[in-house]
Order: sequence, then C-alpha cells, then structure tokens
Amino acid sequence: MKIAVLGTGIVGRTLAGRLVEVGHSVTLGSRSATNEAAVEWAAGAGPLAKAATFFDAAADGEVVINATPGAVSLEVLAAASTMNLGGKVLIDVANPLDHSAGFPPSLSISNTDSLAETIQRAFPTARVVKALNTMRADVMVAPERLAGGDHDAFLAGDDPEAKEVVARLLAEFGWRAEHIKDLGPLDAARGMEMWLPLWLRIFLTQGNNNAFNIKVVTG
Amino acid sequence: MKIAVLGTGIVGRTLAGRLVEVGHSVTLGSRSATNEAAVEWAAGAGPLAKAATFFDAAADGEVVINATPGAVSLEVLAAASTMNLGGKVLIDVANPLDHSAGFPPSLSISNTDSLAETIQRAFPTARVVKALNTMRADVMVAPERLAGGDHDAFLAGDDPEAKEVVARLLAEFGWRAEHIKDLGPLDAARGMEMWLPLWLRIFLTQGNNNAFNIKVVTG
Repeated sequence: MKIAVLGTGIVGRTLAGRLVEVGHSVTLGSRSATNEAAVEWAAGAGPLAKAATFFDAAADGEVVINATPGAVSLEVLAAASTMNLGGKVLIDVANPLDHSAGFPPSLSISNTDSLAETIQRAFPTARVVKALNTMRADVMVAPERLAGGDHDAFLAGDDPEAKEVVARLLAEFGWRAEHIKDLGPLDAARGMEMWLPLWLRIFLTQGNNNAFNIKVVTG
Repeated sequence: MKIAVLGTGIVGRTLAGRLVEVGHSVTLGSRSATNEAAVEWAAGAGPLAKAATFFDAAADGEVVINATPGAVSLEVLAAASTMNLGGKVLIDVANPLDHSAGFPPSLSISNTDSLAETIQRAFPTARVVKALNTMRADVMVAPERLAGGDHDAFLAGDDPEAKEVVARLLAEFGWRAEHIKDLGPLDAARGMEMWLPLWLRIFLTQGNNNAFNIKVVTG
C-alpha cells in the first residue's frame, strides 16, 4: 500500500520506518519538501521511502497517518487538504497534550470530546480510526519486544472497514489478533486519549525510561 | 483497626465485608442509622460489623473510606464532619462520574483537577489517598480471583505514611507488593480517575459482565 505518514518526530519516523520494513511505499510528510529530518529518513530507509510536503504525501497516500503533536494536528491536516483525505483511512495516533502549564501536560480536548472526533468533524469524508496513541512509538511497531507481545492495542472508529485496514497494519507490525481490541465507535477515542495522564504517571514512576504498555486481564 | 466505610452501595458493602473478613471492626456509614442496606449488612456480617450515620461512623473510625458516588462525595464527607476526618487516612475510591447526559458517563471533574484533590482541599487535615477506583468492587477485594492476582492497583497521595496504611490494607485483601503501584502525589489521581472512560469502553466490549483489570507490562 501507499501510506502517507504526517509528522517527522519520533512517532512519525518510527511508524514510517516500520511500514517500509513490512513492504509499504511510505511518504513522510512535513511542512517543507526539504525538511531535514524527513529527507534524512528517506535517504536512509531505502527505495520504498520518500519525503514530501504534507499535501503531496497525503495526495499520494491510500492511507494517511496523523503522527503530529495534537496541538498542530488540525493545521497539518488542513495543509494535507480535505481533497487528499476524502474516502481515505486516516489513522490518528496523536494525543491532544497541552504543555502550556508545564509537565505533566493536561489535555487540550477531553471528557466530552476527543482529538479524533474533532478531526473527524473537520474532515467528514475521511475515515478516521484512533489507534496506537496509548503507547510509545517503539512499542507500537514491535509489540513482541515487550513481554512477547502479551499486551493490548485499542481501536476506535465509525467505519468498520477502515478499522479492518488498521487492524491488518497492526498485524503486520506483530500485533496478534487477540490483542487488538476494537472499542467501538470513534467517541471511544475519548477514553483512549484520557488514558494519557495515567500513562504519564506510570512512566514517571517506572524509572529507567523503560517501555511499557497495558494488558487487559480477564478472569 | 476501626474502619468507617461511607456508602452502602455495592462498593461500600463489598469493601466493608472484606475488611471484616480480614479482622477489622467496620462501621458502614449512611445518611440514617436505620438505613436498610447498612442494617441488613451489619446483621449478616458478624460481631465486627456495625451500621451508623456518616457522622458516627467517621467519628469511630481510625481510617475512613469514601465509597460514595463522586457526585455526592463532598456532601457525604461534610456530613461525616471535618472534626471526624482530621489527621485520619481517608481512602477515596470514588469516581466523579457525570450521568446527566446518559451512558457512558463523562467526568464532572477531570484533566486539571480530580475528585481526590477536591476532597483534599475541602478537608485539608484529612490524609487523602486515592486507591482502588480503577476497578470493580469484586476485583478490589479479591485480586487473586483474576489471573491469579497478576494485575495492578494504583495509589496516589501526598502523605507517604497514609499510603503505607493503604498499601497494608491492600496486602490484606491479597494484593502482592509488586502489584501495588504508588504513582506519587495526590494529583496523580487525575490519571486514575481519567482511566474510567477507557475502563467503561473496555467493559462495554468485554461482554458477559466479566470482571477485568489492567496490568502494566514492562520489558
């Protein structure tokens, strides 16, 4: 598949790299076609990797991934353009973190709304799926490195077929079917984003900058 | 220890019953000393169990547990009275669920504040510890019934000794030390309460009304 990854931070580059590794054609999108991080990534990631503007990346992609900070996601997606998002699966892995009052951040959108729903309202023809925002990038793309993959990823979205596309990508990353938990419609993204404050506190007390994730434990 | 459990719902009665079982003297507090649920519970729970008003329960308790719905917690604690809470460990297991817009509920306090912090501000001499609000009552008191106890409970509070008291009670319930995770100061309760929306979505998709909890999975 041709996949556009918007955002050149650690999340964007990690997802882009792994998508290339499993055989997809990936364009890493950024504000400028000569963005240093994107160009450097593309140069090192082989023939399936390209760098381009948000607009050109989204135009070329069959699936688009929002891997930008939540605070700029709407602006970035506007630059990618409604016409390039219409009918496409738009995977939102961002979190609406508000760093304005220091660390740990609060959320700029929460409780009765979510970033994912805000994006869906702004781009109604996109098929938004919330995924992977609940963990660090290294865990997203290689679940088996943590406890042999025995932990969970969540999905939320209003389009069942779009969620299947995302579930297949997660499977390519190594997520086993029983660990991909579909939480239902897109408003379930509220819970997925509101998990971040607890994630941050666990992160702060874990020590050693260790990767971690959660597993839903049942009887 | 003499423990006051405020609230006669399933959480209050379950905690009270288990506390009696492990040897504590428990007073189940409610609005009236003749509250049917409380009197019935006390009659069935043996000589260590009593029913009383919020005020009398709190006056008698060395530790007080807030097991009321978040929407009425402040009012109940006011009835229990500042003078009966001063210097005591106050375990807040409540969640600030707002059911006014239907199901699933949102939170009435969140993001930059929490119910636990609100309670601490209202009763500054109490030693508030947030605990156990992240799971169902049957899991709180018998962790070993779920995956042999291999899942986690969180604590938050500004008083380290108070947290030790709570950790000891959790140990009596069966929580192993490595599964009692101290997340730091009381403002970490924000994350513990903001977990509820995700908990609710997992609950809705789990099916069969199964008990569940989360385990933090590390490398």
